[in-house]
Amino acid sequence: MMINLFTKTTRFTICLSFICVSSFSQKLSQNKLKEIASKYAESSIPLLKEILSIPNDAFYPEDIEKNIKWCEVAFKQRAFTTHRIKTATVPLLLAERKHKNAEKTVLIYLQIDGQPVDSTRWFQKSPYRPTLKRLNSNGDWEEVSWEKMTNYEDDWRVFARSASDAKGPVAMFLSALDAAKEFNITPNYNIKIIMDFEEELGSPRLPNAVTENQTLLSADMLIIFDGPRHITNKPTLTFGARGIATLQLTTYGPNVPQHSGHFGNYAPNPALRLAKLLASMKDDQGRVTIKGFYDGISINPATEQILKAVPDNETQIKNRLEIAETDKVGGYYQEAIQYPSLNIRGMQSGWINEKVRTIIPSWARAEIDVRLVLESNPERLLSLINNHIIAEGYHVLKQKPSTEERLKYPKTATLTSEISYQSFRTDFDSEVGLWLTRALKKSFDEDPIRIRMSGGSIPISPFVTTLDIPAVTVPTVNRDNNQHSPNENLRLGNYREGIQTMLAILNEKL
Amino acid sequence: MMINLFTKTTRFTICLSFICVSSFSQKLSQNKLKEIASKYAESSIPLLKEILSIPNDAFYPEDIEKNIKWCEVAFKQRAFTTHRIKTATVPLLLAERKHKNAEKTVLIYLQIDGQPVDSTRWFQKSPYRPTLKRLNSNGDWEEVSWEKMTNYEDDWRVFARSASDAKGPVAMFLSALDAAKEFNITPNYNIKIIMDFEEELGSPRLPNAVTENQTLLSADMLIIFDGPRHITNKPTLTFGARGIATLQLTTYGPNVPQHSGHFGNYAPNPALRLAKLLASMKDDQGRVTIKGFYDGISINPATEQILKAVPDNETQIKNRLEIAETDKVGGYYQEAIQYPSLNIRGMQSGWINEKVRTIIPSWARAEIDVRLVLESNPERLLSLINNHIIAEGYHVLKQKPSTEERLKYPKTATLTSEISYQSFRTDFDSEVGLWLTRALKKSFDEDPIRIRMSGGSIPISPFVTTLDIPAVTVPTVNRDNNQHSPNENLRLGNYREGIQTMLAILNEKL
Repeated sequence: MMINLFTKTTRFTICLSFICVSSFSQKLSQNKLKEIASKYAESSIPLLKEILSIPNDAFYPEDIEKNIKWCEVAFKQRAFTTHRIKTATVPLLLAERKHKNAEKTVLIYLQIDGQPVDSTRWFQKSPYRPTLKRLNSNGDWEEVSWEKMTNYEDDWRVFARSASDAKGPVAMFLSALDAAKEFNITPNYNIKIIMDFEEELGSPRLPNAVTENQTLLSADMLIIFDGPRHITNKPTLTFGARGIATLQLTTYGPNVPQHSGHFGNYAPNPALRLAKLLASMKDDQGRVTIKGFYDGISINPATEQILKAVPDNETQIKNRLEIAETDKVGGYYQEAIQYPSLNIRGMQSGWINEKVRTIIPSWARAEIDVRLVLESNPERLLSLINNHIIAEGYHVLKQKPSTEERLKYPKTATLTSEISYQSFRTDFDSEVGLWLTRALKKSFDEDPIRIRMSGGSIPISPFVTTLDIPAVTVPTVNRDNNQHSPNENLRLGNYREGIQTMLAILNEKL
Repeated sequence: MMINLFTKTTRFTICLSFICVSSFSQKLSQNKLKEIASKYAESSIPLLKEILSIPNDAFYPEDIEKNIKWCEVAFKQRAFTTHRIKTATVPLLLAERKHKNAEKTVLIYLQIDGQPVDSTRWFQKSPYRPTLKRLNSNGDWEEVSWEKMTNYEDDWRVFARSASDAKGPVAMFLSALDAAKEFNITPNYNIKIIMDFEEELGSPRLPNAVTENQTLLSADMLIIFDGPRHITNKPTLTFGARGIATLQLTTYGPNVPQHSGHFGNYAPNPALRLAKLLASMKDDQGRVTIKGFYDGISINPATEQILKAVPDNETQIKNRLEIAETDKVGGYYQEAIQYPSLNIRGMQSGWINEKVRTIIPSWARAEIDVRLVLESNPERLLSLINNHIIAEGYHVLKQKPSTEERLKYPKTATLTSEISYQSFRTDFDSEVGLWLTRALKKSFDEDPIRIRMSGGSIPISPFVTTLDIPAVTVPTVNRDNNQHSPNENLRLGNYREGIQTMLAILNEKL
């Protein structure tokens, strides 16, 4: 077949020689990879359950320490050296393993901490007690005994905090390392693993730690085992992610809550003030109306082609979210993600439901997140928001107004913000991009879906900018995993294919 | 002095003869009233502490039953008969005492239940453990041993839920009854007392109960021992109160909270939708912009004169609330209260502060109260709000939208409402108005401040409309009592003068 094809165009020849080289480096066949992954998906369940059983809300450093220790043991058992990179709070953990004849080094980013939990909203004993479930004929998730794992089905799921985001991928990778060992696969590159225990806090200590440990972390490229696959649940590579900044905005009414009868029509209501401020920032279709917010972004025809190649089924997305219409920031999903967002992630004033009382609240607060893209300077976006609030007549402070300030300015607001990390984006035809595309194609016998930008954020920009290396994300988990919400879960089929994906990468010559 | 004055004008003569009659009916002098009240303010403290120690959140009927039993015992001990008026939930309690030679019957309304408590925000062990405090030189409220009551100062305060709203007045009235007994004062009218145990829930069962028990409740007039005095803390009579209706408005985003990265710019945000709806209802200065909301209200010169006679010090009010400017519904405080209000009393979406997570929430909710005035039909006001939301593009439902409705309508909202009770207003020169004015003037040697309308609501309209009797409120507590909020309190000077006020009313010939 190769000889025949030599008669084709040059462009095709290049393509062929690419297949050729990769064929030589492929130590295990596609079928073998699949078979091994199936075996390990079952045999590694104790490992998965063990890691998911350790509470990992980063607000509780004593719980985080247990996770760090667990990771140290896990990687040492697999012939890695480990090193704690100290920060002002909990450390980052670096694990390293060198391989014979390796020329390059691949840095792998893993996230160990999880979002806070509201146990009352989980349909199981504890978010930290992994529970196996299957969908019954009534459309409900019913518990399945772990003993039935010997006959598991791909659509069963493991429910636990971080099952998908992102301890599941950690367990997949450890299993892939075990499988590689059993089948004598030695990567032709060295591996460094950097483990983050404050990702859900926005990795506030990561940028400094990277800057201060550049030699320790030096590598040729970065891959990230995090995030959900494309909604079709087919093998996916993601070449970028939006960054994130957060803001907290508070408006004020009377100094303490006042009886709404005695002061309604008289004392200004902070919830109304907050509502007016928020309403002034976006139009009815979710577009930010603050002038200049989208400056610098334009989707050219080449980019549009890349975006439109993603096989999104938007009717399906809308049906899943149960929304009749989407916001109109972009014309379609992939385009929407190329723009920065301004999202109200939380809002509160006074009390609701059974705690309601007839008051004028004394304050109202909105929690906002701004997803960042490469084209927008984060400081500039935050400054636009700050200036907008000032233009709405507010005296904007970084702290609570004093009595003097309250009595001097008709409208006061407190605005604090934090830039967690910037966006990153890697070219499809970079070395790391081509290598991973090759590995996935050979493992699954089809081109992976390649996504220019993920909407979500991962704290990658410190690596990309400080270490000056390209980064690609290898997502493995199911998209409908309730990430960040109650009843987070991981589909077993994704767990199995995740192991297969990571084994394929260990198996693929760089 | 009387003879001299007989030579004056007829108008003056009438005035004089009024003084004459009232002098004869005055059994106790002003000084004696004051002396007795002083004695009882101290001796009745165990009674006050006892009633304040019984939890009275109407969400817990088992606690309410304890309050009912306490009231039954208290009034039976004072020679009243008691009768439970059954409702679908907890009963109302009627206590009755007839007096020799009485021609008329005065119905007295007392409220026993209290607002819910958030114990974590009270600076004492429990909101149901009355605590005596005084302001120290640092401006902090410091606890004082109850043993020091023998040397109490008027500015000391009792902190407890319902200290002011409205168990304090109940204790004052019971003390006044005891004092009247000791000093052989027998009112020349019969007394019926109606006790409400669901006032803070909006007295949902009261209107029906009044309708079904008209004979039991029949009386010539109604007086209400509730609410704070004018801010000057001088003796006050209130001739009306705004009514109240409540609404709950919920907007929807994705069916479950979604990761704000993956869906920010795509899935509509319910908090933004709610903000836009609320913002569309009022202008920047707190005026409702829904057309027709203020229809029917106009302040004529005679009314303006009444309103302006109230000695409000608005600078003082603003300083106390720590606000630089007020809403602009009226030009001044008393005028503002003559209009219906639309107040956001609670608002929530997602989570804030340490519970914040990076999601697009699935819903956002506002709790709204609308204070009613006589000129506005409550159904019409609620309908205006409902129609406004429809005009903003919403499919408005009374319940949560179904999946089909979510997928059919771009914007869905749930709006539920309840009219608790309408406003009432009594003429200053009505029989009850003149009688109470007389009693207070004689007791305190000055004209009481007479207020046309109180901003707050009391469930009086069922009595006024169904029983067709006029009503006047006799407020006694300090205005800065943190009513409905944490650290509710009652100033001891107000407790003392409250007893004096009620004793003066028992003492005054009707």
